[in-house]
Amino acid sequence: MKKEIPFNSKIIEKIKKEHGTPFYLYDERGIKSAARDLNEAFSWNKGFKEFYAVKANPNPRILEILKKESCGADASSLAELIVADRAGVRGESIMFSSNNTPAGEFKKAKELGAIINLDDISHISYLEEYVGIPDIISFRYNPGVLRESGGNEIIGTPKEAKFGLTKEQIFEAYETMRDKGVSRFGIHTMVVSNELDTKQFMYTAEMMFELVADLSRELNIDFEFVNLGGGLGIPYHPEQEEINLNAVSASVKKAYEKHIEGNNLPDLKIFMENGRYITGPYGYLVASVRHIKHTHKDFVGLDASMSDLMRPGMYGAYHHITVLEKDGEDTIYDVTGSLCENNDKFAIDRNLPKLERGDVLIIHDAGAHGHAMGFNYNGKLRPAEFLLAENGTVEMIRRAETLEDYFNTLEF
Amino acid sequence: MKKEIPFNSKIIEKIKKEHGTPFYLYDERGIKSAARDLNEAFSWNKGFKEFYAVKANPNPRILEILKKESCGADASSLAELIVADRAGVRGESIMFSSNNTPAGEFKKAKELGAIINLDDISHISYLEEYVGIPDIISFRYNPGVLRESGGNEIIGTPKEAKFGLTKEQIFEAYETMRDKGVSRFGIHTMVVSNELDTKQFMYTAEMMFELVADLSRELNIDFEFVNLGGGLGIPYHPEQEEINLNAVSASVKKAYEKHIEGNNLPDLKIFMENGRYITGPYGYLVASVRHIKHTHKDFVGLDASMSDLMRPGMYGAYHHITVLEKDGEDTIYDVTGSLCENNDKFAIDRNLPKLERGDVLIIHDAGAHGHAMGFNYNGKLRPAEFLLAENGTVEMIRRAETLEDYFNTLEF
Repeated sequence: MKKEIPFNSKIIEKIKKEHGTPFYLYDERGIKSAARDLNEAFSWNKGFKEFYAVKANPNPRILEILKKESCGADASSLAELIVADRAGVRGESIMFSSNNTPAGEFKKAKELGAIINLDDISHISYLEEYVGIPDIISFRYNPGVLRESGGNEIIGTPKEAKFGLTKEQIFEAYETMRDKGVSRFGIHTMVVSNELDTKQFMYTAEMMFELVADLSRELNIDFEFVNLGGGLGIPYHPEQEEINLNAVSASVKKAYEKHIEGNNLPDLKIFMENGRYITGPYGYLVASVRHIKHTHKDFVGLDASMSDLMRPGMYGAYHHITVLEKDGEDTIYDVTGSLCENNDKFAIDRNLPKLERGDVLIIHDAGAHGHAMGFNYNGKLRPAEFLLAENGTVEMIRRAETLEDYFNTLEF
Repeated sequence: MKKEIPFNSKIIEKIKKEHGTPFYLYDERGIKSAARDLNEAFSWNKGFKEFYAVKANPNPRILEILKKESCGADASSLAELIVADRAGVRGESIMFSSNNTPAGEFKKAKELGAIINLDDISHISYLEEYVGIPDIISFRYNPGVLRESGGNEIIGTPKEAKFGLTKEQIFEAYETMRDKGVSRFGIHTMVVSNELDTKQFMYTAEMMFELVADLSRELNIDFEFVNLGGGLGIPYHPEQEEINLNAVSASVKKAYEKHIEGNNLPDLKIFMENGRYITGPYGYLVASVRHIKHTHKDFVGLDASMSDLMRPGMYGAYHHITVLEKDGEDTIYDVTGSLCENNDKFAIDRNLPKLERGDVLIIHDAGAHGHAMGFNYNGKLRPAEFLLAENGTVEMIRRAETLEDYFNTLEF
């Protein structure tokens, strides 16, 4: 899939002139279209709702945009609950899916009217003690073993994962909640991440619909929703293809017809909690060439570092790079930052046009797990974030960190 | 090497009562003793100096302690230069070893009178243009290939590394600087990290002393110092042994006698820039058990997460864990945080005493690359740092982050 940039060099140069590089730039149009595509693909399901994974990009402005596209928020912590609240996403438009959760965060979730998704059976009594039993409850299911696949590359094997309840516990948990007077039920799982294989989503849907049917029958309860988790992948590499959303949706529909409609169960809302799919491709890290270095290899040093975007250094992840106003790929570079850390490289042996100081590089697919995972190692400061609105205007939606921020927790 | 904790539970309980967990606690006595041991081992070299790698623990109070032990600062960025300055470490007690450096950082380094260590030959003209040529200069050498070893595990193969100048460039660089009127020279390399094998330090010393001899002879210049880099490892695992500092020193001395004294070269100061060795073992991450979870495995959930200490999650690194006031190792746990991230585990399949809510766990060897590498992913806040002074008092040397800090770069 060819990697395009949805803005011209004038926009970049204008931001650069006023604020310098590096910075993140998000494309509102792309984010909206991803949300619409997802909603459209699942429009056969009356209650379908995407709860955007706030962790992927916890900027409230992003969530505001998504709210207008009928998305909710998947929040995993106190700070993320507050982000949702500030973006105007409230009540059951928030799903609070955390793990190893402190009481204070359950309290905040309840205060906001969020759907609470419990990660462990022991959290029933914990919740009851500190917060009380809510009207609606969800549990996270951990199947232990996945059909066919040995586990998705990022998620690993479910039985090694700290998340969720076992099948036996799931039955006990809903029974307990039923007996405590809960009348509204949902269920959740999250077993794949950045997955481009449509089959995996079919497996997840079948597993969850079967489980809902079994639970409904055995415990004589009705389920309002099933949250199939996120995990819709994106083609980081130009040679990869976009996932076929309609194929995913069709296979989920088929499983729904078989296990939900086929068992005469009441309508079930399908929820998802994608992060990467919604914003990943529509965020760009923009950086300038500071130095070119020729030693045992050829290096191009940017004014951005691993501290701005961890995925290449941490996971060896591929992020495509476009050079503004330059074409060709006749020179091979390692594209580096300025951390004293060996893996501080955005790309290794990457074919690019011949570069010089001041050239502007656009690092693609940085709209999820980009700024959110930044750190201050080596005393580096995290960059600003800008939004390219649909009407073509540019808005700063997060300022760059300053040295004052960096030293803020110290007394000098 | 048995893992001890240098404080009793009263101290921990007192901090916990006032400030809660998690927090970092540093042991001043241990930090001082490590600095003294290093200085003592190299006392045969008149000018020996340890420049503490600020990146490992950029708290100015740590650097103040080390300053009293005659240590300088190895700074790699503007923020780290400021940390050194605030700790009262100035002038040639700072070595500024950065890479892909912006002009402003060179300016600050010059302003502080730091020794500037250039990472690339192209930085000569860059420095000249923006800052001017200083009286004393150093270059970082990248040998490309290491004798015997294929490269240290963390550092990787030097020829793939973005750091330093090739041998050919090193000769050209010093010649250029000599011709520009520089009269004082040093040289630097950094080819191992967290290394426990004494041989590696001998190889580095031989390589660098030979190079100094060759450069001195060929260019008719004198060297004041050689910075052998850091890299002295620590025994993270109880089954590992401490590195034998005296053996390291003796092998460096032997190489010194052969290549420096044997060539009738003037006295050469040996510098090092250890971080981990000095503070690593004397920093502890203290956390409480929030939840115990039994699913496909047994999990203990702490109130600290990967966001507080990245090494286990990022590198799979072993960090020893002591449970306060509990002995035994009859139960096997995965010790987790509360991030929605699969690798958010401090330990996997670790034998520990049977745990319950509120138990306090001490995570060892967190005094270097611990707090410094923390991030705010999932909206997590970075913890406070405390110093246990030699006189037994406890001082907060960095406050915990607040939600206000987290949201500080946003406009609500």
